[in-house]
Amino acid sequence: VTALIVYGRPEWRARWSACLHAHLPDLDIRTPENPGNPADITCLLGSIPPEGFAALYPNLRVIFSEGAGVDIILGLRLPPQVMVVRIVDDTLSAMMTEYIVWSVLTLHRNIPAYRASQTAHQWQRIPATLAANRRVGILGLGALGTDAAHALRRFDFTVAGWSRSPRDVDGVACYHGADMLDSFLARTDILVCLLPLTPETRGIIDAELLARLPRGAAFINAARGGHVVQEDLIAALDEGQIAHAILDVTTPEPLPPENPIWAHPGITLTPHVASIATPESASASIAENIRRLEAGSPLLHLADRSRGY
Amino acid sequence: VTALIVYGRPEWRARWSACLHAHLPDLDIRTPENPGNPADITCLLGSIPPEGFAALYPNLRVIFSEGAGVDIILGLRLPPQVMVVRIVDDTLSAMMTEYIVWSVLTLHRNIPAYRASQTAHQWQRIPATLAANRRVGILGLGALGTDAAHALRRFDFTVAGWSRSPRDVDGVACYHGADMLDSFLARTDILVCLLPLTPETRGIIDAELLARLPRGAAFINAARGGHVVQEDLIAALDEGQIAHAILDVTTPEPLPPENPIWAHPGITLTPHVASIATPESASASIAENIRRLEAGSPLLHLADRSRGY
Repeated sequence: VTALIVYGRPEWRARWSACLHAHLPDLDIRTPENPGNPADITCLLGSIPPEGFAALYPNLRVIFSEGAGVDIILGLRLPPQVMVVRIVDDTLSAMMTEYIVWSVLTLHRNIPAYRASQTAHQWQRIPATLAANRRVGILGLGALGTDAAHALRRFDFTVAGWSRSPRDVDGVACYHGADMLDSFLARTDILVCLLPLTPETRGIIDAELLARLPRGAAFINAARGGHVVQEDLIAALDEGQIAHAILDVTTPEPLPPENPIWAHPGITLTPHVASIATPESASASIAENIRRLEAGSPLLHLADRSRGY
Repeated sequence: VTALIVYGRPEWRARWSACLHAHLPDLDIRTPENPGNPADITCLLGSIPPEGFAALYPNLRVIFSEGAGVDIILGLRLPPQVMVVRIVDDTLSAMMTEYIVWSVLTLHRNIPAYRASQTAHQWQRIPATLAANRRVGILGLGALGTDAAHALRRFDFTVAGWSRSPRDVDGVACYHGADMLDSFLARTDILVCLLPLTPETRGIIDAELLARLPRGAAFINAARGGHVVQEDLIAALDEGQIAHAILDVTTPEPLPPENPIWAHPGITLTPHVASIATPESASASIAENIRRLEAGSPLLHLADRSRGY
């Protein structure tokens, strides 16, 4: 019988236990308070394993990440035998697509300007643009980026995507690699970041990149705060290169009350809520991977530790 | 040759002329400044015909309304031989669907609360709800309501609609008539008004109707200000029966700066911009109707003057 230890707040752990037991009634689920013999434990579930977990659980084989991003876990100097599994579930991408469609429509329909007009008690219309004439560009064409791109296409937005290696997404102009980044940026009115955070993509949204967008472009970050050089973004907003930014993620999180992002008129901020997996939706794929581990079969959705995602 | 007079601002009339001539090169387009012999004129295009137009243009047969709503034109005491044609075009419903999806996602994802948290510099998450557990109810299942319902279904919202007479919309629980209004309201978390404005629907959104929604429901009005008893809506917001309202329309328009709607923390306001037809998108169907008029065939998209829409 596989033993799995689950981290997180008690009510959250209870939801995970109930949902995992529905799929695997025999799974031996442990908690940090009652780990039993730590040498039994082969699986760990949580966003951030505790300090020194590798020494605590010498037979650990798999870490199941609770979020889509595995950058924090991969940054932990894992023992070589430990595999990291990303959560890929329908709820995760459905929630992210809701957030991306909401934020693209917010920018497309000039909602930040109407919010300012409401504050000023001014009835002031802005000429509308057809979605077909609005060019959205998605950085990152993994499961989340692809689902968001399809949803935006259904509104008739002109959508392109950029990824590290070549991709082919129906109805989406696909760019890849460093060489094609410039042409991708030059055709993008609304830039959406859904990249994984790796040493290569950390700080990718900097003054130089923002300057290659058309003047007055908008920016949405639903990936990681670490993708953005925040001072560069604020400078680009201040001088009008970027018209508005919608940020779900920041550095650090939570954002301290004195950080200038809070009060910047060009920034709409949400507290890292774009997309979270729920035990109800994610348990089936975790259970499937535990069955594969027990059968000695290859796991699904493994993070590639050398690429960092 | 049919003679049509077009009203509105000069640059707007120029766009209409160019687009209509692309479909009907021989159409005789007149302007209020140069109407020629007014007895020639059989068609009028505009949102609000001028005072006394019936006496001005004794042979008028058709008024083409620029917006989806024909309540203003039908309120004008038209001569019996004048037909009123609603604009039904893809752009009109595509823009309205963008607005409805934007506003439903805004409420579904708790954006008004996050906006307040940003103002207070507070990083405060709200547990998410799956779209499938969010019950949207659309008042009005015409072309606009049906298109919005389909788009919301693609996000997996649980969608119902209510209309005066029975309708059948795929994936949408359809209610109709006064008898079924109560059950429709009782199952609705987010109420969307897309009704035509008629003597029957004027003031329909009043204290009594709002009280029949579940406590803490939200309200979206993208139809007409006249549907809402504004004092009742504000009272329902103030005492918590309604959690938030997104209004694209008000009484009067433009809303005077001293009106309490502007500063109400529970109201998000846009200045009647949810949906407008453009000459580029609407000219084809107007041209088709002019051809039908010349051929003596029945016109499309006629407003029913007895029903008021």
